[in-house]
Amino acid sequence: MIEKITIIGMGLIGSSLARNIKQHKLAGTLIAADRDEAVCEKVAELGIADIVTDDLARSVEEADMVILCVPVGAMRPVVELIAPHLKDGAILTDTGSVKESVIKAIKPLCRSDIEIVPAHPIAGTEFSGPESGFAELFDGRWCILTPLPETSIRAVEKVTQLWEGCGSIVEIMDAKHHDLVLGVTSHLPHLIAYTIVGTANDLEDDIKSEVVKYSASGFRDFTRIAASDPTMWRDVFLHNKDAVLEILQRFTEDLTALQRAIRKEDGDYLYQRFDETRAIRQEIIDQGQD
Amino acid sequence: MIEKITIIGMGLIGSSLARNIKQHKLAGTLIAADRDEAVCEKVAELGIADIVTDDLARSVEEADMVILCVPVGAMRPVVELIAPHLKDGAILTDTGSVKESVIKAIKPLCRSDIEIVPAHPIAGTEFSGPESGFAELFDGRWCILTPLPETSIRAVEKVTQLWEGCGSIVEIMDAKHHDLVLGVTSHLPHLIAYTIVGTANDLEDDIKSEVVKYSASGFRDFTRIAASDPTMWRDVFLHNKDAVLEILQRFTEDLTALQRAIRKEDGDYLYQRFDETRAIRQEIIDQGQD
Repeated sequence: MIEKITIIGMGLIGSSLARNIKQHKLAGTLIAADRDEAVCEKVAELGIADIVTDDLARSVEEADMVILCVPVGAMRPVVELIAPHLKDGAILTDTGSVKESVIKAIKPLCRSDIEIVPAHPIAGTEFSGPESGFAELFDGRWCILTPLPETSIRAVEKVTQLWEGCGSIVEIMDAKHHDLVLGVTSHLPHLIAYTIVGTANDLEDDIKSEVVKYSASGFRDFTRIAASDPTMWRDVFLHNKDAVLEILQRFTEDLTALQRAIRKEDGDYLYQRFDETRAIRQEIIDQGQD
Repeated sequence: MIEKITIIGMGLIGSSLARNIKQHKLAGTLIAADRDEAVCEKVAELGIADIVTDDLARSVEEADMVILCVPVGAMRPVVELIAPHLKDGAILTDTGSVKESVIKAIKPLCRSDIEIVPAHPIAGTEFSGPESGFAELFDGRWCILTPLPETSIRAVEKVTQLWEGCGSIVEIMDAKHHDLVLGVTSHLPHLIAYTIVGTANDLEDDIKSEVVKYSASGFRDFTRIAASDPTMWRDVFLHNKDAVLEILQRFTEDLTALQRAIRKEDGDYLYQRFDETRAIRQEIIDQGQD
């Protein structure tokens, strides 16, 4: 148990974390901070924190651990605001989907006694806001930590215990490697889903209504992904730009090759490509990730 | 009830249809035909048809209705084989995912007394073969009929009753329009899913194993779609070439615009595009299609 934990940002992730911390008694006192007064009111109403405040600077003053659950683009301004108020030796962790740029943004703002433990719980839904959170969100899901070379083992252990307390399975990884892997598994799929749903959204109204009607034939699966929080995803793409553009380039080349095969009616090439992809699905099933 | 029905092609769709016809007693006699002996043996073992044969020509000789459940590319050779053996006034229907090219392929091969009722049940899974079929597959799902101008109302009614008997909701549509709508809702999503899974499949082995491990972050949803039958999908793209290339062109333009916005760090454009797509998700939920 950690004596005092402050969560900054009470959206889906922050509020789910708060529910866990309360339910599993992972903190002596839990402080929930959000700059949005309406969010604070909602959190107070939900009763998922001991103290609720919109004063971010004051919220961290006595915290042993501060968890940033704000969009990746908001990490820097939030840390600018709170850094002078952090307690000596406090652990500063986050839940952002991009790790290298967050480290670059916040590290120069922190004193050397602050223990930075970047973290990324691989969990989420397409819903946003404190009322969308739930305690089971992290259950059985990965949480990746990307500690800095100077982060102490004690701090890494504390953050590990917190996430294990929420039901997660913790993995340690290099920040740059994290951004590449998540670029493939999460960021590119989201970009593609947003694109295809956007393409459909631009169609003439009569066709669009039929696209909705017959969406179960494949399209529907993309709309769920493309309903995710636009601020969060804007920030992900801006902050993992290099990895996303690199993997997007490969994707575009592969799509162009399939497009050419359709145009040239090269059935053998299409069959071969469509047949190869079954193996990866089987591996996902074999590893219990489906 | 129809006296004699022959199903040709006993894969996922054909075998699910057979299970329905038996269970709901929609035919006096059900004949299952497949050119693959191993499939015939499996079907006989499953006991989902009254007669099982690999002799396609003979299988249709006394049938009042013949249902083609083969890949779109196999429609022409199958109809070439069976057309001379069709009973006077027999109803010839199918379950292909593309309608215009199937009509073009089979109509010239049929005598004028044959009632052609092209059909497309919007249902499926990523599994193939007679053992993957199940009776509930069509329950509450759309089935689109695209009858020809010369098709009799009686024939359309018979096919409608069959699909309603399987639990489907039947809609009538123009074949060309069907191919455009399904190009957007089904064919493009499948092409994109095959592409993204193929791109991941081409990655170095160490990254690929992590892509599988962390697939729940978005990628996994694409692998299910990309595990669909490669022969079926090869044929869909070859036979709905024009509509697919047209909608793919729009998709590529939209993706290029997002790529440029990431490169130029145009957060406003990204936010706007990501925000627009939420509406279509809401419509899908409102219409109970989620």
